[in-house]
Amino acid sequence: MTLIVSAEIDVIPKHDVILPLLTSKVAKFILSKNQQIGELIGSKKKYKELSISPLSSNGRFLYAENDGKLLRAMRGEKLHFTFSVATSEVNEKTFDLDGDVSTSYGEFYVLLKTIYINQLKDIRHEIKERNVNLRFESPTLLSNKYMVPPVFKKKKVRSMNRLIPQPSLIFSFLANLWNSIADERERIVKGDLEWTPYYIGRIADVAFAEIGYSLRPVTVIIGKDNNQRIRQARGFVGWVKYEVINVNPRYLETFERLLGLAKIFGIGRSRGIGLGRVKVE
Amino acid sequence: MTLIVSAEIDVIPKHDVILPLLTSKVAKFILSKNQQIGELIGSKKKYKELSISPLSSNGRFLYAENDGKLLRAMRGEKLHFTFSVATSEVNEKTFDLDGDVSTSYGEFYVLLKTIYINQLKDIRHEIKERNVNLRFESPTLLSNKYMVPPVFKKKKVRSMNRLIPQPSLIFSFLANLWNSIADERERIVKGDLEWTPYYIGRIADVAFAEIGYSLRPVTVIIGKDNNQRIRQARGFVGWVKYEVINVNPRYLETFERLLGLAKIFGIGRSRGIGLGRVKVE
Repeated sequence: MTLIVSAEIDVIPKHDVILPLLTSKVAKFILSKNQQIGELIGSKKKYKELSISPLSSNGRFLYAENDGKLLRAMRGEKLHFTFSVATSEVNEKTFDLDGDVSTSYGEFYVLLKTIYINQLKDIRHEIKERNVNLRFESPTLLSNKYMVPPVFKKKKVRSMNRLIPQPSLIFSFLANLWNSIADERERIVKGDLEWTPYYIGRIADVAFAEIGYSLRPVTVIIGKDNNQRIRQARGFVGWVKYEVINVNPRYLETFERLLGLAKIFGIGRSRGIGLGRVKVE
Repeated sequence: MTLIVSAEIDVIPKHDVILPLLTSKVAKFILSKNQQIGELIGSKKKYKELSISPLSSNGRFLYAENDGKLLRAMRGEKLHFTFSVATSEVNEKTFDLDGDVSTSYGEFYVLLKTIYINQLKDIRHEIKERNVNLRFESPTLLSNKYMVPPVFKKKKVRSMNRLIPQPSLIFSFLANLWNSIADERERIVKGDLEWTPYYIGRIADVAFAEIGYSLRPVTVIIGKDNNQRIRQARGFVGWVKYEVINVNPRYLETFERLLGLAKIFGIGRSRGIGLGRVKVE
C-alpha cells in the first residue's frame, strides 16, 4: 500500500535575508534538520517519490529568472512551502519541525501547519462541469520524451523541454509517475502496462480542449554546477483552462486520479527542487 | 499535375469605408468580378483548394473580435489581400483584375501586384539552422479531430478547436491537405496512405520543441447566420519559435514541403474566409 504524505510549513525569517536563487534549498535544509524527515529525504531507499516546493510569499512562489535580481525576504514575513513524499510506511509521531532553525541563508522560525496522509488509491480531483483549470505556479518542465512510444529506444531521442503544455505530455507523465509509486494492485493499466502512459496521453489530446489560457516561457535558475557557474532550465508558467470532451466514464476516472496526483507532486521534471508546482481547479 | 496559383492584390478605397467584420468578403467580391477567377472560385469542381486572406493594412490583417469595434479604412489607404488556389489547369492570360470595383462595401481601386504559379512538387520552405518560426497572423482554428487515429470513426468525436498550436495538429493537418490536392504521384506517403497524416503528426511532436512563443486565444467574427445573428469562432493568434530536433533527412524534407504549403494556404479551418494565415520563417 502506497501512502502519500504532504506537509505545509510556515517559515518566518528572524531578520532580513537574501534567499538562495533556488528557494527550495531553504526548505530542504529545514526538512533535513528533523531526524526522521531528514532520513526519509536523505535516503532514496525510503521513499518512492519526493516533491519539495519553492518558498512562497503571499501565495506566489519565489524563484529566480536569469535577470540578476536577488530574492529577498523581510524579518517577520510569512514564507511557506510544502513537501510531499510517497512511501510504503510512515511513522507519524515524529513530524516535529517547529522551532528555530539556523541555516546558511539566515535564521528562521519554522512552524508545521498541516500534515496530510492519504492512501494513493484515494487520491482524486473531481472534475466539475467538465472544466479543469491548471495553474502552473512554478516553472514547469515537460520533456518531449514523455510521448515517445515505448518501441523506440528513448535514449535515441534528444531530450528537450516543450514550452507549451500539451495534454498528452501532462497525462503521460502523470500516468508514469502514478505507476512508478503504486503497488502492483494500485496501478493504472490500459491494455499493456508499458504502453499505458502513451495510450492515456493519446486519449488526453482528444479529450482535453483549451478554452482559455495565459502562458509564457521562462528561464529559471536551478543551481550552480561544480565550477560555480549558474545552471538554468527553460520551462513555462501560467494557466490553461480545459473543457473535457469525448471521454468515457472509465477514462474520466483515470484523469481525475491523475489530476489528484498532480495537485500533490506537481508535473514534469525537477519537482524535487521546486519546479512544476501546479494548482488544479 | 497540381498547380498552385497565388496572387497578391492591392485594394485602395476611393472614399472612407466601413469594412465588413469579415474582411475577406471584400476580397471574394473583387475576385468574383473577374470572369475567370469568378468561375474558378465559384465552382468547387474547378479547384482542389482555395484560401483567401482577410484584407491587411500596414502588414496587419484586419479581423473583428467580438468587441463591437468597427473596421474602417480611409480613402487612399493601401489595403492588401492574397488568394491561393490549387488546380490541375490554369489559363494565365485572363488574370486581369486591375481597375475600379464597386462593391456593397464601397468603391475600390484594385491592382494585381504579383501572381505566382508553381507546381506542387516544387513547394518547399527550407529550414535554416534547425529553427522554424510560425506566425499565426490571422486567427487560427486547429481541430482536435486532426489527430484522431483513422481506426476511430471521426464522427464519434466531438469537434472542438484546440487553442494552443501543437506540432502534431499542424503537420497532421498539412499532410492531409497536401494529399487532398496532390495527384497520386505527388502524394506524401509514410507507410499506409490513410495513416500518413497521423504518423507525421506523431513524429512532429517529438521533432519540434518550442524555444519561445507569444500566443493568445481570440474570438473572431466569421459572419452572420440566416437570422442575422453574429457567428463567431474561437482560435488563437501569435507566434511560436521551434527548434527542430530528432528528425532524419527523409522526414525533414517532408516537414519542409508541408511548411511550404502552410505559407501558401495557411493552417487549419476556414482558410477560405481568411482564417489560419501563417508566416513561416
